[in-house]
Amino acid sequence: MSQKRVWLFREGNATMRNLLGGKGANLAEMTNAGLPVPPGLTITTETCMEYIDNGNKMPDGLMDDVKTALTDVENQIGKKFGDASNPLLLSVRSGARLSMPGMMETVLNLGLNDETIKGVLELTGNDRFAYDSYRRFLTMFGSVVLEIDRDKFEKILDEIKEEEGVILDTEVSVEGFKKSIELYKELIKKETGKEFPQNPMEQLQAAIEAVFGSWNIPRAIAYRNHYKINHRYGTAVNVQTMVFGNMGNDSATGVSFTRNPSTGENKFYGEYLTNAQGEDVVAGIRTPKPIQELANEMPALYNQYVEIAQKLERHYKDIQDMEFTIEKGKLYILQTRNGKRTAQAALKIAIDLESEGIINKEKALMLVDPAQLYQLLLPSFDEESKKTGILLSTGLNASPGAAVGKIVFDPTEAAERGQAGEKVILVRVETCPDDIHGMISAQGVLTARGGNTSHAAVVARGMGKPCVAGCETLKVDLEREILTTPDGKQFKKDEIISIDGSTGEVFAGAITTVEPKMGADFDKLLSWADDVKKLLVRANADTPADVEKAVELGAKGVGLCRTEHMFMDPERLPVVQEMIISGTKEARKEALAKLLPMQYQDFKDMFKALKGLPMTIRLLDPPLHEFLPNKEELIEKVATGKAKGEDVSEDAKMLEIVEELSEVNPMMGLRGCRLGLTYPEINEMQVRAIFEAACDLKKEGFEVKPEVMIPLIGHVNELKAARDVLEEVAQKVMEEKCVQVDYQFGTMIEIPRAALTADKVAEYAEFFSFGTNDLTQMTFGYSRDDAEGKFLNNYVEQKILPANPFQTLDQEGVGQLMEIALEKGLKVRPNLKRGICGEHGGDPESVKFCHKIGLNYVSCSPFRVPVARLAAAQAVIEEKE
Amino acid sequence: MSQKRVWLFREGNATMRNLLGGKGANLAEMTNAGLPVPPGLTITTETCMEYIDNGNKMPDGLMDDVKTALTDVENQIGKKFGDASNPLLLSVRSGARLSMPGMMETVLNLGLNDETIKGVLELTGNDRFAYDSYRRFLTMFGSVVLEIDRDKFEKILDEIKEEEGVILDTEVSVEGFKKSIELYKELIKKETGKEFPQNPMEQLQAAIEAVFGSWNIPRAIAYRNHYKINHRYGTAVNVQTMVFGNMGNDSATGVSFTRNPSTGENKFYGEYLTNAQGEDVVAGIRTPKPIQELANEMPALYNQYVEIAQKLERHYKDIQDMEFTIEKGKLYILQTRNGKRTAQAALKIAIDLESEGIINKEKALMLVDPAQLYQLLLPSFDEESKKTGILLSTGLNASPGAAVGKIVFDPTEAAERGQAGEKVILVRVETCPDDIHGMISAQGVLTARGGNTSHAAVVARGMGKPCVAGCETLKVDLEREILTTPDGKQFKKDEIISIDGSTGEVFAGAITTVEPKMGADFDKLLSWADDVKKLLVRANADTPADVEKAVELGAKGVGLCRTEHMFMDPERLPVVQEMIISGTKEARKEALAKLLPMQYQDFKDMFKALKGLPMTIRLLDPPLHEFLPNKEELIEKVATGKAKGEDVSEDAKMLEIVEELSEVNPMMGLRGCRLGLTYPEINEMQVRAIFEAACDLKKEGFEVKPEVMIPLIGHVNELKAARDVLEEVAQKVMEEKCVQVDYQFGTMIEIPRAALTADKVAEYAEFFSFGTNDLTQMTFGYSRDDAEGKFLNNYVEQKILPANPFQTLDQEGVGQLMEIALEKGLKVRPNLKRGICGEHGGDPESVKFCHKIGLNYVSCSPFRVPVARLAAAQAVIEEKE
Repeated sequence: MSQKRVWLFREGNATMRNLLGGKGANLAEMTNAGLPVPPGLTITTETCMEYIDNGNKMPDGLMDDVKTALTDVENQIGKKFGDASNPLLLSVRSGARLSMPGMMETVLNLGLNDETIKGVLELTGNDRFAYDSYRRFLTMFGSVVLEIDRDKFEKILDEIKEEEGVILDTEVSVEGFKKSIELYKELIKKETGKEFPQNPMEQLQAAIEAVFGSWNIPRAIAYRNHYKINHRYGTAVNVQTMVFGNMGNDSATGVSFTRNPSTGENKFYGEYLTNAQGEDVVAGIRTPKPIQELANEMPALYNQYVEIAQKLERHYKDIQDMEFTIEKGKLYILQTRNGKRTAQAALKIAIDLESEGIINKEKALMLVDPAQLYQLLLPSFDEESKKTGILLSTGLNASPGAAVGKIVFDPTEAAERGQAGEKVILVRVETCPDDIHGMISAQGVLTARGGNTSHAAVVARGMGKPCVAGCETLKVDLEREILTTPDGKQFKKDEIISIDGSTGEVFAGAITTVEPKMGADFDKLLSWADDVKKLLVRANADTPADVEKAVELGAKGVGLCRTEHMFMDPERLPVVQEMIISGTKEARKEALAKLLPMQYQDFKDMFKALKGLPMTIRLLDPPLHEFLPNKEELIEKVATGKAKGEDVSEDAKMLEIVEELSEVNPMMGLRGCRLGLTYPEINEMQVRAIFEAACDLKKEGFEVKPEVMIPLIGHVNELKAARDVLEEVAQKVMEEKCVQVDYQFGTMIEIPRAALTADKVAEYAEFFSFGTNDLTQMTFGYSRDDAEGKFLNNYVEQKILPANPFQTLDQEGVGQLMEIALEKGLKVRPNLKRGICGEHGGDPESVKFCHKIGLNYVSCSPFRVPVARLAAAQAVIEEKE
Repeated sequence: MSQKRVWLFREGNATMRNLLGGKGANLAEMTNAGLPVPPGLTITTETCMEYIDNGNKMPDGLMDDVKTALTDVENQIGKKFGDASNPLLLSVRSGARLSMPGMMETVLNLGLNDETIKGVLELTGNDRFAYDSYRRFLTMFGSVVLEIDRDKFEKILDEIKEEEGVILDTEVSVEGFKKSIELYKELIKKETGKEFPQNPMEQLQAAIEAVFGSWNIPRAIAYRNHYKINHRYGTAVNVQTMVFGNMGNDSATGVSFTRNPSTGENKFYGEYLTNAQGEDVVAGIRTPKPIQELANEMPALYNQYVEIAQKLERHYKDIQDMEFTIEKGKLYILQTRNGKRTAQAALKIAIDLESEGIINKEKALMLVDPAQLYQLLLPSFDEESKKTGILLSTGLNASPGAAVGKIVFDPTEAAERGQAGEKVILVRVETCPDDIHGMISAQGVLTARGGNTSHAAVVARGMGKPCVAGCETLKVDLEREILTTPDGKQFKKDEIISIDGSTGEVFAGAITTVEPKMGADFDKLLSWADDVKKLLVRANADTPADVEKAVELGAKGVGLCRTEHMFMDPERLPVVQEMIISGTKEARKEALAKLLPMQYQDFKDMFKALKGLPMTIRLLDPPLHEFLPNKEELIEKVATGKAKGEDVSEDAKMLEIVEELSEVNPMMGLRGCRLGLTYPEINEMQVRAIFEAACDLKKEGFEVKPEVMIPLIGHVNELKAARDVLEEVAQKVMEEKCVQVDYQFGTMIEIPRAALTADKVAEYAEFFSFGTNDLTQMTFGYSRDDAEGKFLNNYVEQKILPANPFQTLDQEGVGQLMEIALEKGLKVRPNLKRGICGEHGGDPESVKFCHKIGLNYVSCSPFRVPVARLAAAQAVIEEKE
C-alpha cells in the first residue's frame, strides 16, 4: 500500500491507473505532457478502501494532506480557496480504475458561498452567471452530497418559473435565481437539520466523503457484479480547479481539431467565442468565430495553442479534438481526445501522419476504421441533401449503396425501361427468380417483405445493387400499382423515390448522390496492409464480372462461387425448371445436359479471370422450390380461375409440383448435399462442367485451381458418399481430356454437427470453409428470414444480445464451434486448408477473430475485400500489442 | 507367439478369441460344454500372419500338424478323409478375432471327388443329393479357392436348365447335375490350366491358403480401415466335419427351442424330419413333426437331446434356439443361440428363469428388451389376421397402437358418431387444432400429409391414440369424401379400415386386435428394475388423465407439461385466437384473463394427481400461427369468394393476420422464450396460473412442487430477462395468497448455443432439461417435419446415418453437446438438476446414454415409462459388466 494518499497532477502519470484511477492518471499524463491543464489533485483509490474499512471515517491526516496539496494548487493558479476577492472554485469527481459511468455525479463550483460569490460577481461582472452558478452548486451539493431528493430542488425552481410566467431555466430572472438560492438553503436546513455549510473546506470534505461512500451504494455494487469488477478496487477522487472563459474580453472558450475532420486536410480547424462559457459555443446563441481569428485577437495565446495542439498530435499520434478556455489571458486545455472523422479524412490523415514522420505504417493502418473504408467504394447520399429529404419508411439495409429512380412495379417493365437508359427502382412485395431481369436493369430494389437472406437481398448483394428489403410498413399494391406509406401517402408508378441500402431508408423524391472516392492513398494503405497481414482475402463471386471486380480490389481467389446464382439467370431458369419438374432421372439428365454447356462457359470465364488463383465452387445448395413460382400466388390463381370456370389445368399441375417440393422449414430441409445425394445427377453435371472447363483451359496454357465444395455436411458419411461419386466424375473427365489439373475436394462447416465431429469430417475434406451464415442460424436456432424482423432487432435494442449475430460473428457460441472444428480437424489433417465464406468474412471484428483462431483466408463480397484486407492487417498489429 | 499352430476344438475355449478367432473359440467352448459338436480343428490367427510374412507360403510342417489333427477328427467321427466307402467331408471357414462378415466365403463338402462321391451315393442312397453336393462343391472351390468368375459356373447351369426346359435349380435332373460336374471340371482346367485336384489333402491345403490369402484382399483391407481393425490380427481357419441327416431312417434333422418362444411356457418346442437335410425342415416340402414325437421314434436320442438342451439353457442362462442333426443314430448339435421371442414370452421367461434359480434378478432384467415391453401396453393386431389383410399403404408410424373403424372425413361427424359409440377412423389430409374434437372421439387418425411432429402425430401421441401420419401415397378427397390408394382403389365414407400406428400400415377391412397383456410378472420385473436403476423416470403429460396414467405406470413426476396442448382444447381455442388476433397489449391481456381460470384449473388438477411429485411446466412454446387457421386454405377461400363476388372481408382479415404471423422457417422463428420476451403478458398469465394453483392446493394441505421451464434459450440474457419478470409474478402471487411454495426456475437445453454456453446459462437456471427433439433438429440442421419423408429415411436405408436421430439419440453429435452442457453447467452449479424431455427419453439406447452421462431423470410419454424404467436398470447392470 502506498503511503502517499494525495497526489498533485504533476506527480502522477498514465501508468498509475490502479492507484489514481483512470481519470486521475490521464489528468496527470496531460499535465506532464506540458499541457496547461487546470491544476488539481487526486486522492488514491486505496484511500477510498481505507475510508470504507474504517467504518466510513476519513483517515487521520487525510484532510491535512489535501490542504497541503490545495495550497500548491492555489499557488499554481493564483487564486485562493474561500477567498472573497479571487476565489478558487473546484470540481470534485470520482474516478475508478475501470470506468463505471453514472455511478456518481460530479460536484462543480465547490467553494461558492455567500462570501465567495462576491468575488465571482466582481471578476465576471455577470450577475446572471454568478447566481446561476451558485444555484447549480447548491442543487448538486444538496442532492449528491447531502442526499436530498433532487426533485425538491426542481420543484422550487418550477414554482419560481410559474411566478415569473416563463418556461425555460434560461428565461428565469437574476432575482429569481437569487430567490431560489435562499429557498434552497432553507430546504437544506429543513431536510438535514443543519445549515448549508458556508465553510469551503467543510464543503470539500463532505464532497470527498460522498464520493468514497458512493463506492458501496447498491447500484455501484450491482454494476460491479454485472461487469465482474473487483469490489476491493475503490475509487479515486479528483479535485480540480474550475476555470472560466467568461471573465471579460481577455477570456475566451472554444473547440478545435488539429486537422480538418471532414477532408483530412492538414490545417488547424475550429471555432471560439470571446468572453463566453463552453456551452455558448455549442448552443448557437452567438455565432462562433473561426479559430484563425484568434491569431489576430490574441496572437500570443493563439501561437501557444497551436504549439500545444501540434505537440498533442505528436504525443497521441492522431488528430486531436480539443477544448480550451482562456481565463484572463491564461490558456487552459480542458480536454483532448482523438477526433472523429469521415472515411475520406481518416484515410488522408493516416497517410499524411505517416509521411510527416509522426507515425509508422502500422500505426497508420490502425488509424482507419475498416468499416469506414467500405463507404469509399460505394455511391452514397449527400448528408445535407438527406436532411432535406422526406423519409417515408425504414426497412432492412439489405444491400448497401444509394439509388434514385422512378417507381416501377413490373419487373419486365423495369427491365425494358432500364435497358432503355431510364433510372427506375423496382418495387415488389418480394422478389423471385422470375424478377431477375428487372433487378438487373433497375438502379435499386425495394421490397415490402423478406429478410436479409431473402431472394431480393441475396441477389442484390451479389450484383452490388442497392436494396432495401422487408420494409413492412409500406404497402405494395401490385395490381393497382400503388405504394402506400404508413401515414397513408400514396406513390404511383413513375413517381421518384430514393433508397439507401446502407441504412434501409426510403425517401420521397431525388436525394443527391455522391460518387465513390478512391485513389493513391487508398492503394497505398492497402498495400501496407498486405505487407502486414497473414490472412489471405478471397471474394465471394458468382460471375466473371464479379471475379474481375474482386481481383481488382485485391482478392487472392474466389472463396465461394454459388452455382445456384448461375441457375437463376433468366435465360437458364426455364431449363432449371424443366429439370425440376421432370419426374424421372432420365428427364432430369436431359435437362441437365442443356445446362452443362452454360455452366461450362461460366466456369471457364471465371477461371480465366482468376489468372491461376484458386476458386472454391459450392455445388447446388438451395431447396429446389426456390427455382419455381411462388406457391401462394399459384393457389390464389388456381382458386380464382376455378371459381370463374376457366381452364387452370396447367397452373394446377405446377401447383402440385410446387406443393410436393414445398417444406415447412426449407432452411433445414432438402438442400445442400442432401439434394446431391438424392439427385446425384445434378452434382455430377456440375462437377463435369467444372472439370471440362478446367481441363480445356489448362490445355490452352492457363493455370486453374478448382476446389469443389460440398455444402451442408452434418455427418462424414454424407461427404464420403458425395465425394466418392464426384471424384469418379472428375477422374473420368480428366481421362477424357487427357490432362490432369490440381484440385481439391472439401466442405462447408455450417451445421453444428459437422463442427462437433470435424475430426471425422476432415478425413474426407481437404479444406473446411466455415459457412457462418448457416452456422449462426443453427447454433442460435434463428431463421434469418424471420428473426430479424420478428424479434432479433428487439433483442439487440434490449441488449439481450450484444449485436446481431448475422452481422458480427458470435464468438462465444458460433466461434466456439469454429474453434472446436479447427482443433479436431487439424488433429486429423494438419495441412487442412481453412477459411470462412459467410458474410462475416467482410466484417472487421469477425475478420480479426478469424485471424486469431488461425484461419488461412476469409472470403467476402468483392466490395468488402479492401475492408477485410485492412482488418486482417489490424488483427496482426493488435496481436503484437 | 504360440508354438502350437493347430488346435482341436476340444483343446480350446471361449477366452482364446485372439488366437483361435471368434468362431473357433466358440466351437471350442461348445465342445467343452459337452455338446456333441461335429469335430474339427482350428488353425491359429498367428499362423495366418506367418503365412503372409512368409510371402504367402505355408509354414513348414503346418500341413503335417493339420494331418495329425485330422486323424484325431477321423477317429472321433469314425470316417476317413478321402475314403471311397465312408468319406469324411469337411467345411473350411475363415474366422477372425473380430467378425468381418462377407470377407471370405465358406467352402462346404470339401473332400468330394470322383471316388468319394461313391461313398456318399451308397450311404445316402440319394443320387440327386450326392451329385448336387458335388456340383456345389466344385462351384465353391472353383470360385472361392481358384478365383474363377462365379458367373461362368452359373452360365453352364443356365444352359443345362434351358436344355431341360426348367427354371429352378431344384427342377434340374440328376443327369443334368452329372453333366454340369463334367463341364465344371472342364471349365476349371481351361481357366487354371490344371485339372481339378482330385486329391482331398491337396483340396484342403488350397482352401486353407485361400482363407489366409483373403486377409489381404482389397475389400478386407478397406473393411479393416473403415472399422479401424488392426491389420496384424490375421484370420484363423476352421476345418470341421460335415454331418448329414439324410443318411437313412436312423438319421434326422430339426430345430427346437428350450421353451415356447411365443408364450414363454416352459415346454420343449420344435420340429424335425427323419432322413432329411436341414433345408427340408424349412422348405416346407414335407411337413415336419413336433419334436415330442422324436421321443417315440428315437427315445434315447430324444432324451440325450433334451438333456443337452437343458444343460445349454443353464450354460447360456437363456432360452436356446438349437439346430441338430442325427447321422446314423448319432446326435450332433450344429448350432445353439439365444432364441428370439415375443414380448410376452420374454417377460415370462425372465421371471421363470429367476424363480427356477437359473439366473439372478439382474440377469432377468437383461433378458427383456425394453422396446418390447412397450408392446405389452398397447392393443395390437393379431399377426395371423394381419397376414390375411389387404395392405393399402404404409405411412409414418406416428403414434403406436392398433385401431379399426369406419372411415369418417369430417371431424365434427367423427366427434358425434364417436361419442354415440361408433368406431370411426378420422381420415384427413392433415389435422389442425379445429379437428381435435374429432380426434378425441375417433379410434385412430390417418393423415396423408405431415411428419412425426405434425399436429396429428403430436396430439395423437399425447392422447395415446393410434395414428398413421404422412401416408403420402393415399389421396384424400375431403370434398367428395373418397380415399384413393396408389393402385386406384377407392374407399368411401363408412367403409372399414384398420390402421397400425406401430408400423404405419393401413389395411382394408377389419383386422383382429389383441388386447394388452400386463400382470404380476410385469409388475415384478419393474419393481426389480426400480431397485437397481439410478435414473428417475418422469412422464411428459399435459392433462390430469395423462398424469394419472403416468403415475400408475410408475412415473416419479412430470418432466414436461406442454402448456400449449392445453391451449388447443376446442373450447379454449377461440379465446386463444382472440388473444392472438388482438393487436394491442390491453386486448391481449383481456383475452388472457379469460384463459387464466382455465389454466389454473388444469394445473390444480394435475398437481393433485401428482400427490406431491414434482411437475416441470414449460411455458408457451410454439409459434402463434399454429393456433390459427391454415394460411393456404384461407388464400384459396378468399380467392374463390372474391372471384364469385362474395363478401370475404372476414376471411380476408383473418388471412392478413395469418400472413403477418407466418414465417419462412417457423421452427427457428418467433417461438419459445422469444414469444415470452415479445409478449411478456402471456407468460405472466401462465406463471400466475401455476402459482395460484400451487398456493391454493398447499393451503388445502397438498404438497406441490412446480418447476417453471423457460424454453428455447440460446443466450443467458434471454433466460435472465424472462426469469426476472416471472420471479416477480411468482413472488407477488405467493404474497397475495400468504403462502410459500417450493419452486424452481430452469430451462430447456435445446439450442446448440445454450449447450455451448451452459456455464453462463446455469447461473440463472436451477435445472436443465435437454429438449433433444429440437437439439437434434438444430445440431443436424434437419427440420423434422420435412426431413423424414424427403431424405432422412433414404439416409438410413443407404447407411449414411446409422439410425434416425429423432428416434435414437445421436450420441456422437447431439450427445457431445449434452456432455459439454453438463460439464459446463455443473462447474457453475454443482447441484444443477438435469433431465431429458425429448422423445429420446423413452428410447432404451438413449436412456442408457442419459444414465452414462449422469442425468438425474428421463421424461417420456406415459406409456413409455415402463420402458425407461427397465432401460435405466439395464444401464446400471451393463455399466457393472
